[in-house]
Amino acid sequence: MSQQCVCVADFEKEARRVLPKAVYDYYRSGADGQNTLADNVAAFNRWYLLPRVMRDVSIVDLSVTVLGQKLSMPLCVGATAMQRMAHPAGETATARACKAAGTGMMLSSWATSSIEEVMSAMTTSPGNGGVLWMQLYIYKDRELTLSLVRRAEKAGYKAIFVTVDTPYLGKRLDDVRNHFKMPPHLRMSNFSTASLAFSEDNYGNDSGLAVYVANAIEPALSWDDITWLKKHTHLPVIVKGVLNGEDAVKAVNYGVTGILVSNHGARQLDGVPATLDVLEEVVNAVQGLCDVYMDGGVRRGTDILKALALGAKAVFIGRPVLWGLAYQGEEGVTELLELLREELRLAMALSGCRSLAEVNRSLVRKVDFNSRM
Amino acid sequence: MSQQCVCVADFEKEARRVLPKAVYDYYRSGADGQNTLADNVAAFNRWYLLPRVMRDVSIVDLSVTVLGQKLSMPLCVGATAMQRMAHPAGETATARACKAAGTGMMLSSWATSSIEEVMSAMTTSPGNGGVLWMQLYIYKDRELTLSLVRRAEKAGYKAIFVTVDTPYLGKRLDDVRNHFKMPPHLRMSNFSTASLAFSEDNYGNDSGLAVYVANAIEPALSWDDITWLKKHTHLPVIVKGVLNGEDAVKAVNYGVTGILVSNHGARQLDGVPATLDVLEEVVNAVQGLCDVYMDGGVRRGTDILKALALGAKAVFIGRPVLWGLAYQGEEGVTELLELLREELRLAMALSGCRSLAEVNRSLVRKVDFNSRM
Amino acid sequence: MSQQCVCVADFEKEARRVLPKAVYDYYRSGADGQNTLADNVAAFNRWYLLPRVMRDVSIVDLSVTVLGQKLSMPLCVGATAMQRMAHPAGETATARACKAAGTGMMLSSWATSSIEEVMSAMTTSPGNGGVLWMQLYIYKDRELTLSLVRRAEKAGYKAIFVTVDTPYLGKRLDDVRNHFKMPPHLRMSNFSTASLAFSEDNYGNDSGLAVYVANAIEPALSWDDITWLKKHTHLPVIVKGVLNGEDAVKAVNYGVTGILVSNHGARQLDGVPATLDVLEEVVNAVQGLCDVYMDGGVRRGTDILKALALGAKAVFIGRPVLWGLAYQGEEGVTELLELLREELRLAMALSGCRSLAEVNRSLVRKVDFNSRM
Amino acid sequence: MSQQCVCVADFEKEARRVLPKAVYDYYRSGADGQNTLADNVAAFNRWYLLPRVMRDVSIVDLSVTVLGQKLSMPLCVGATAMQRMAHPAGETATARACKAAGTGMMLSSWATSSIEEVMSAMTTSPGNGGVLWMQLYIYKDRELTLSLVRRAEKAGYKAIFVTVDTPYLGKRLDDVRNHFKMPPHLRMSNFSTASLAFSEDNYGNDSGLAVYVANAIEPALSWDDITWLKKHTHLPVIVKGVLNGEDAVKAVNYGVTGILVSNHGARQLDGVPATLDVLEEVVNAVQGLCDVYMDGGVRRGTDILKALALGAKAVFIGRPVLWGLAYQGEEGVTELLELLREELRLAMALSGCRSLAEVNRSLVRKVDFNSRM
Ligand SMILES: Cc1cc2nc3c(=O)[nH]c(=O)nc-3n(C[C@H](O)[C@H](O)[C@H](O)COP(=O)(O)O)c2cc1C
Ligand SMILES: Cc1cc2nc3c(=O)[nH]c(=O)nc-3n(C[C@H](O)[C@H](O)[C@H](O)COP(=O)(O)O)c2cc1C
Ligand SMILES: Cc1cc2nc3c(=O)[nH]c(=O)nc-3n(C[C@H](O)[C@H](O)[C@H](O)COP(=O)(O)O)c2cc1C
Ligand SMILES: Cc1cc2nc3c(=O)[nH]c(=O)nc-3n(C[C@H](O)[C@H](O)[C@H](O)COP(=O)(O)O)c2cc1C
Repeated sequence: MSQQCVCVADFEKEARRVLPKAVYDYYRSGADGQNTLADNVAAFNRWYLLPRVMRDVSIVDLSVTVLGQKLSMPLCVGATAMQRMAHPAGETATARACKAAGTGMMLSSWATSSIEEVMSAMTTSPGNGGVLWMQLYIYKDRELTLSLVRRAEKAGYKAIFVTVDTPYLGKRLDDVRNHFKMPPHLRMSNFSTASLAFSEDNYGNDSGLAVYVANAIEPALSWDDITWLKKHTHLPVIVKGVLNGEDAVKAVNYGVTGILVSNHGARQLDGVPATLDVLEEVVNAVQGLCDVYMDGGVRRGTDILKALALGAKAVFIGRPVLWGLAYQGEEGVTELLELLREELRLAMALSGCRSLAEVNRSLVRKVDFNSRM
Repeated sequence: MSQQCVCVADFEKEARRVLPKAVYDYYRSGADGQNTLADNVAAFNRWYLLPRVMRDVSIVDLSVTVLGQKLSMPLCVGATAMQRMAHPAGETATARACKAAGTGMMLSSWATSSIEEVMSAMTTSPGNGGVLWMQLYIYKDRELTLSLVRRAEKAGYKAIFVTVDTPYLGKRLDDVRNHFKMPPHLRMSNFSTASLAFSEDNYGNDSGLAVYVANAIEPALSWDDITWLKKHTHLPVIVKGVLNGEDAVKAVNYGVTGILVSNHGARQLDGVPATLDVLEEVVNAVQGLCDVYMDGGVRRGTDILKALALGAKAVFIGRPVLWGLAYQGEEGVTELLELLREELRLAMALSGCRSLAEVNRSLVRKVDFNSRM
Repeated sequence: MSQQCVCVADFEKEARRVLPKAVYDYYRSGADGQNTLADNVAAFNRWYLLPRVMRDVSIVDLSVTVLGQKLSMPLCVGATAMQRMAHPAGETATARACKAAGTGMMLSSWATSSIEEVMSAMTTSPGNGGVLWMQLYIYKDRELTLSLVRRAEKAGYKAIFVTVDTPYLGKRLDDVRNHFKMPPHLRMSNFSTASLAFSEDNYGNDSGLAVYVANAIEPALSWDDITWLKKHTHLPVIVKGVLNGEDAVKAVNYGVTGILVSNHGARQLDGVPATLDVLEEVVNAVQGLCDVYMDGGVRRGTDILKALALGAKAVFIGRPVLWGLAYQGEEGVTELLELLREELRLAMALSGCRSLAEVNRSLVRKVDFNSRM
Repeated sequence: MSQQCVCVADFEKEARRVLPKAVYDYYRSGADGQNTLADNVAAFNRWYLLPRVMRDVSIVDLSVTVLGQKLSMPLCVGATAMQRMAHPAGETATARACKAAGTGMMLSSWATSSIEEVMSAMTTSPGNGGVLWMQLYIYKDRELTLSLVRRAEKAGYKAIFVTVDTPYLGKRLDDVRNHFKMPPHLRMSNFSTASLAFSEDNYGNDSGLAVYVANAIEPALSWDDITWLKKHTHLPVIVKGVLNGEDAVKAVNYGVTGILVSNHGARQLDGVPATLDVLEEVVNAVQGLCDVYMDGGVRRGTDILKALALGAKAVFIGRPVLWGLAYQGEEGVTELLELLREELRLAMALSGCRSLAEVNRSLVRKVDFNSRM
């Protein structure tokens, strides 16, 4: 019997109970030695919160404007592939939960629900918030790539997040061991051929998804592709996967609207810094010329608050949403988003912050002792 | 059968054996991930003691004057709510033990014995020390709040410690899971209605105490409330829950008599620094204009000594007293206080300190290596 | 039944299953408390990779020139003694695997296959890469020593790596406990007498190899022996076992062609730094006047990349090859080398490096936080 | 059946098997939380050895002159009380083993063999090394104290080590729990009354030894007592238990011949630094005006070498000798001393040091990274 979930870790426990091993492994894994995976989470413990008291926190306002849309809170849902492996309603359930929560959802190129289906799920669902953005993998086949963009534009998506950290798929040991592939009844819904829809029978001894990426995704991706993409869409373009100040400056120079500091949930190159550890470098580098977002390891309200204090405009979560979805579909995701919202609200109140405008760099301090924990 | 208790941890072990799980959980828990809970204790291991030898320590004097009262030692009992859950005699037993030990006790607003009962227990008990101070939660209902103050004044309490870190209750996972509420035969004795006495039947799926706080306690608390409080009482006012130099300066400016550096036993906002780690910052900030006390994680005589060396006038303990109470009521608390007194005396002697006047900053040094423990 | 090996650790697990305990212990052990053994591996986690994105990594070139020979990758096989304890084909299998992989192999003086056998195995094996170098222990008997050099020259070995960290054998506790000696059907094949071939019956209560070294190897080794050796061979001389800048400068002054930064796989003196931690000091000290290589703890593609970024021209692996050999002989070593090659290729691609020329110091950053892992 | 002992930890394992729990606990324990106990050992891992190669280490000379006596090695036996609890021959066995090893032994005031017995054991034993020094506790009864000194002088002891860190006994939790007292057949042999010989029946609920110290030992010890002692003996006086530079300077000013940097094996005040961590401060403070020795946590040859590199003239071991004694009496201590000697010899050889004159500060480097071990 499932227990009450009182923190994100509880959702993961429930999800682990119900998911097939290969699916849980795919969702959970990081690349290689998984050092960065642990580090993404641990990094939040390297920053103290320095609360101020006696500030009249009877009202705490969490709202924020992201890419021109007002959201009820600075916590959004990041792109995670193949959500129907977690729950039959997959991405459509997530979209409905985001609508109810009044926040934004980034849809993966590799969704098991189509661009149009997901928009329709959100539109027809109750609630008056909710925004959709499109995560874009640039395929070797550029026409195919543009067709995704056009469909997203047409369906009413509000921005394109281009993933720039995946010229090849990272080596995730469990997926190799499991010879990971999609369950037979599912496919990547945005594509029509079996090979593009990741529904082939056999990918040999490797992770099927690694083979898929090697076949289909553009390894020659370069900054000129941003120029190319911007020429073909009027939507704001955000690069997802920048981890240092130099690349951030490049991104600004190529005209992006925003940067998502991300290491792909530690699934690409192991040994890179935790995202929280490089967030400030990126924020400083762009000098306010574009928005900075972050994802990776966010598991608590205090985590969100620390990322905001270090300069993120909003944060995204990947795995927690999958746990909520596996746990109880749309309702599970809603419960998860509300839990994090209440944690953030409490963290702000107990820190003496009444609105995001009051969350600033002075709220956090790097842990500076040599640990004896 | 219960064992001899030779250190504070032994008292906790005994208490854990006898207490109902929900009570033990309530007493033990910290907020959220409980990082700060562990850190409060660990922080003491980040400071070395630098003993001096050959100093004639045949006599060691532990006495100190706190808020105008002479105490036998610089260790006092902090406010912890609902002590009758630990032992039928609850706060009255603690008061008697403090009298015997010649030290001070801070009574929680949320005591399960009334202000008057506790004073009477202390007064009628043998011993010639013993002081009572009142811990004050400021309720939305200000008249009610002032009535607590007036009762404390009248009963002979010597100071008001205003808790400033609890506009809302911190999220303590076990209390949420346990749907924590008071055992039916008990109530918060200072209040007359069931709702104020925390003796309602059902608080839903949440921690009952979190619901109670949300209903009754003032979330709009601000520095002006110190001005207001001082207008209504001649007792010294100490703010409990300050964690940084800026708030400390504010407190001084608002005329407090003392500051208690506290993170509420790590029960409010997780991720804040250990109290020992910010004690010196607060001491430096107030420049001697008011007294500084601390609580959080004190478990040994050497801990007390380190806090004094960093500038605390005296320290408070919360949980250890509850363990002593659960173990053997008044006798248990007396045993605990004597154990810590002897540990402190030995620590001072082995450090070469004959009185508190000889305890100073040069006695401690921050651990400065990169650990290989 | 043996599992698919998806990382080096898997090869070790398989090897451990098949090897006799005393052999596994001999291969695995480090000296004394084995702090440096753990540290060699851990050191790689003290450096972050700072990937750059959007660099067109459709083609990644791993080739490098080492000691005048073009290799397919900057990963070579280091000298490890007595490989026939791992697999009947021993060093000849390793040589064939190196040929197939297009990389270099350093043959131990203490091989269980002769200098000539190993060269012949490599020569007659398919593939068009493959280089052999000779690892040289300097024996008290200098004529014997020179005969090894002459045989290596004659057989077509391309360089001499003189091991300088073994005037006595390090104390490896398991080998002492096991009274380690060679299995009766094997011998060090480059020597003719039982005593030089390490095939005596009884070495008492000690590690047999420690006794062997005390009897046969030159403890009076000094820099003049480099001069002496260079007089007797036209092959390039590399010193293996330098760990600091001062000795590196000495080596340059004595005319070596290269330095192999090594602590002998942490098997000699416990408590010395991890090799990765001193690599940069050595690279800076030699100021480009000779090549610098490193070995010790390399277990992943990202490890190789970090060592290259810190200035190593190429890296060597010891134990991993033994695990591959124990697992499946030549095929096992081939599989292992291909696995590491693919890991390195992926690490370079995901870091934005298209060739070794693009791997430089800016790719890595020392982890500078105080850990809360 | 007992195993071959290949490192000091093996001796402890054997000792633990044969000793009664209360004895083993007494020997092993540190004070309170035992942080310093662990730290004394861990401190050695915070220093790297930086070996130099190619230095002709065919001959390694370990000899040293301590307090005017030539010893075969810079490793001596420290004072540990009540050795007959470990083995029937107790201190006499240890003395014989020191004679055989050619090193010095410090006899505890609290020995279970008399000053004269131990000297006689050493004198009549084979071997041509061996020195005895007297460890002195200053008793409230000063005549008694001087009688110990006079007996030591007369018997031929070569120095007095005054223990200055024990005005009261540290709180060792296991001893309190065990109500530790001497087994009935034993006594402190240097005293005639039951009360001074620690052979009373009942010390209540406390550690018997703590009660003994409180009754008999001088808590008013001060620097003037050094002046007093020096007036009454011609033997060199060394203070045992100094942990910082200021006290070291005081000691020099009071005319001591040497300082033993010691925290009493972490048995007095928990939370003080590891001795290795303060050794250099003391060495620098005394500016060569007296000898500096150290003890605490020495368990390997590399530990000895690191302490020497940081400026100790020689090091002492406490517990390891007790393990050797419990394991096999005199033979066990001999085996232990030879094991450590060989470890030190090997460590020197592999570091490139041919004699103690070549061991200097440049041999060690503080670990300066932020660990990811
Ligand atoms: C199972 C899974 C699938 C993912 N799929 C995608 C994807 O299709 N496209 C993409 O850009 N990022 C993808 N990501 C990365 C996420 O967008 C995000 O960067 C990451 O999950 C954030 O870290 P977190 O999971 O620790 O919150 C995926 C992550 C996970 C865990
Ligand atoms: C069970 C419990 C109840 C507490 N109740 C109160 C309270 O009613 N009012 C208050 O100001 N602080 C309260 N505190 C906080 C304590 O006053 C004190 O700050 C804290 O316990 C000190 O940390 P320690 O428990 O590590 O010694 C409580 C703490 C505990 C553990
Ligand atoms: C089992 C074993 C045997 C070795 N034999 C030799 C040898 O004969 N000569 C030598 O110079 N180094 C020898 N080494 C050291 C290796 O050449 C190399 O320095 C080390 O293994 C690298 O560390 P790694 O095992 O962590 O990769 C040996 C190492 C091992 C593990
Ligand atoms: C069982 C035991 C008894 C000891 N007795 C004495 C003693 O009688 N007098 C004294 O000065 N130090 C005494 N010491 C301290 C030792 O002289 C020495 O400082 C300490 O043991 C060194 O640390 P180690 O045990 O880690 O080597 C004792 C230590 C132990 C472990």
